[in-house]
Amino acid sequence: MDFHDRPRLPRGFRCAARHCGIKSQGLDLSLFASDVPAAAAALFTRNHFPGAPVVVGRERIRGGRLQAVIANSRISNVATGQQGIEDARTMALLAARDLGIAEELVLMSSTGVIGERLPMEKLERGIMGLAGELDTDPWPAARGIMTTDTEPKVLSLDVGGGTLTAVGKGAGMIAPNMATMLVFLFTDLELPANALRRALRSASLDSFECLSIDSDTSTSDTVAILANGHAGAVEDERFASALEVACLRMAEWVARDGEGATKLIRVRVEGAHDDGDGRRVARAVVDSPLVKTMVFGGDPNVGRILMAIGKCVECRIDPGRVEARLQGVTVVERGERAVFDPARVRHLLDQDTVEIDVFLGLGDGRGLGIGCDLTEGYIQENAAYSSS
Amino acid sequence: MDFHDRPRLPRGFRCAARHCGIKSQGLDLSLFASDVPAAAAALFTRNHFPGAPVVVGRERIRGGRLQAVIANSRISNVATGQQGIEDARTMALLAARDLGIAEELVLMSSTGVIGERLPMEKLERGIMGLAGELDTDPWPAARGIMTTDTEPKVLSLDVGGGTLTAVGKGAGMIAPNMATMLVFLFTDLELPANALRRALRSASLDSFECLSIDSDTSTSDTVAILANGHAGAVEDERFASALEVACLRMAEWVARDGEGATKLIRVRVEGAHDDGDGRRVARAVVDSPLVKTMVFGGDPNVGRILMAIGKCVECRIDPGRVEARLQGVTVVERGERAVFDPARVRHLLDQDTVEIDVFLGLGDGRGLGIGCDLTEGYIQENAAYSSS
Repeated sequence: MDFHDRPRLPRGFRCAARHCGIKSQGLDLSLFASDVPAAAAALFTRNHFPGAPVVVGRERIRGGRLQAVIANSRISNVATGQQGIEDARTMALLAARDLGIAEELVLMSSTGVIGERLPMEKLERGIMGLAGELDTDPWPAARGIMTTDTEPKVLSLDVGGGTLTAVGKGAGMIAPNMATMLVFLFTDLELPANALRRALRSASLDSFECLSIDSDTSTSDTVAILANGHAGAVEDERFASALEVACLRMAEWVARDGEGATKLIRVRVEGAHDDGDGRRVARAVVDSPLVKTMVFGGDPNVGRILMAIGKCVECRIDPGRVEARLQGVTVVERGERAVFDPARVRHLLDQDTVEIDVFLGLGDGRGLGIGCDLTEGYIQENAAYSSS
Repeated sequence: MDFHDRPRLPRGFRCAARHCGIKSQGLDLSLFASDVPAAAAALFTRNHFPGAPVVVGRERIRGGRLQAVIANSRISNVATGQQGIEDARTMALLAARDLGIAEELVLMSSTGVIGERLPMEKLERGIMGLAGELDTDPWPAARGIMTTDTEPKVLSLDVGGGTLTAVGKGAGMIAPNMATMLVFLFTDLELPANALRRALRSASLDSFECLSIDSDTSTSDTVAILANGHAGAVEDERFASALEVACLRMAEWVARDGEGATKLIRVRVEGAHDDGDGRRVARAVVDSPLVKTMVFGGDPNVGRILMAIGKCVECRIDPGRVEARLQGVTVVERGERAVFDPARVRHLLDQDTVEIDVFLGLGDGRGLGIGCDLTEGYIQENAAYSSS
């Protein structure tokens, strides 16, 4: 399955973006819409303090149908109480009126600072007439949802007779159980909502749920998919594979563009007692500040990999069976540092993707961790970031 | 209980340190010894890849008696296999011979780079004659165990008719389940090994087990206590309280001197469903990179505190009951951002200790988190740190 060189929206989907004044400059409001109601599914953050759009979105997705997504950046509408819930509903209502569709068919998302109310007057002016600007170019709407991302993220690929497109944003406060990550997926294939839900859950488990930029779990994370049926039916399994590929690519793109990141880190664990242990070990390695700074520094500090595996005190680990590879080079054998050429590994670490493979030698459990290195850029970005 | 202005060793304890050449410069080998065998207890890392000194130490502490501790810095003797175990035993044997005591009465510790063998010839030369240099000044031996610490750490206080002294090192790769942290405690009081063990476990639970500098759990962490009895008996409870105070002070000192740290962060959670939830929430807040960078930046970003509490998906949390204070100022009420003066809180954050108090409103569970801010200094130190 090849990604399109020039990503495009599937048939019947269009989008638009505006600067409505929530950010001091740049696009901050995006609308995505299908020309007909679409089957839909969504996953949301598991944080105990979900944003108002997540609370409303959870209700709204129960119907299994959506026709549009309205999203803003810079303010997340989290920890804003009952007023926030009303603001989220109003945001969707305004978009529904502009599109001339039912309010219940609009999902809303907000991403950015927590604890501030949305500037509803600006949003109202911004949404009015936005439906009239809908276009097939996905890039402006991808820009409109960016926060600390350095680039907009859109990818698409062919599946059966149709197209699958993902538009995403991420960058920080990202960890499993979803992230300050918004990913909207669109397809013109025909699938029922329950098939979409199954496929989305499964694809997320091996992509977004493996993603951790800083171990912090956002209060706004949303992954939603809309299928409008214009391109006809598709086998469930074929679609599920395409969705997995698209979600994994988007998750890696988000990691690569993590705040301050210079390198993507991919951790694969095999031979775990079960998948739960596999995922926990992968997560521990990809989240370890000492592994992350090691990757940034480009030094093959094998001890830090062992430490990170070993700190999973709740996992079944037999130290004498553990092996690990760094960029394909065996650096740990039978739980001990292997004989390898540090200069060669140092050279191999000087790439934009770093692969760490861990073999636990206990069973068939596997796990994947997707993350990035930890650099001064992350500190500068997050120490300077102002909440007011 | 007041700490001594000039910390001192208890009666019958002396120590010495040398530069034996493991570090390129500076003291790298320390010996602590009692003039008579002492009752002893110890706690070790729970990492699945314990260093050789931890493996041997666990056997040795079963007897409940020690007379000396020999420790080196720069190389940790971790992931060194059977040879590492032999090296650890040899290190203790050399010290025992020099002191003229039984090998089983010597505990050994090594801290530093993982995966390298100890330079046994240098250690042998370094240990030979060291017993002849034993002295009552604790500071050189505290320096000899330093790795990335910026200062040696010794504290002491009076308990009953005796003295309790702690010598520690820390700085990075520190998280609950113990840390790259070595803390040796000495007292001239008389306590049986099982009372020492109980008191040490209890005191660690509310101090070292709450300490997290970077969420990474070292493979070498050791906290050991020796009681030689010269000052006579003491009530168990009285000693336990003093030990708690000493351990907490040492844990906070280690956090304050965390790699790159400029501020100590103290998180207190109350009203949790149980202590387990309380500790997990405290840990999540004190470990959150976004909270840590917020403290460094001095910005009252309330959303990050809510996010960190909320990401404990396995804990019982009722968002509407959550309250939080930052430097004593209520910043979260009923799960929402409270009305407060950001400029005032920003001013209050400009101190060397930052207090975050969380009230969950559910039960009597409590938790403490001790940590530090995350700065460019941590990245620079750990990206530049070379394993070879």
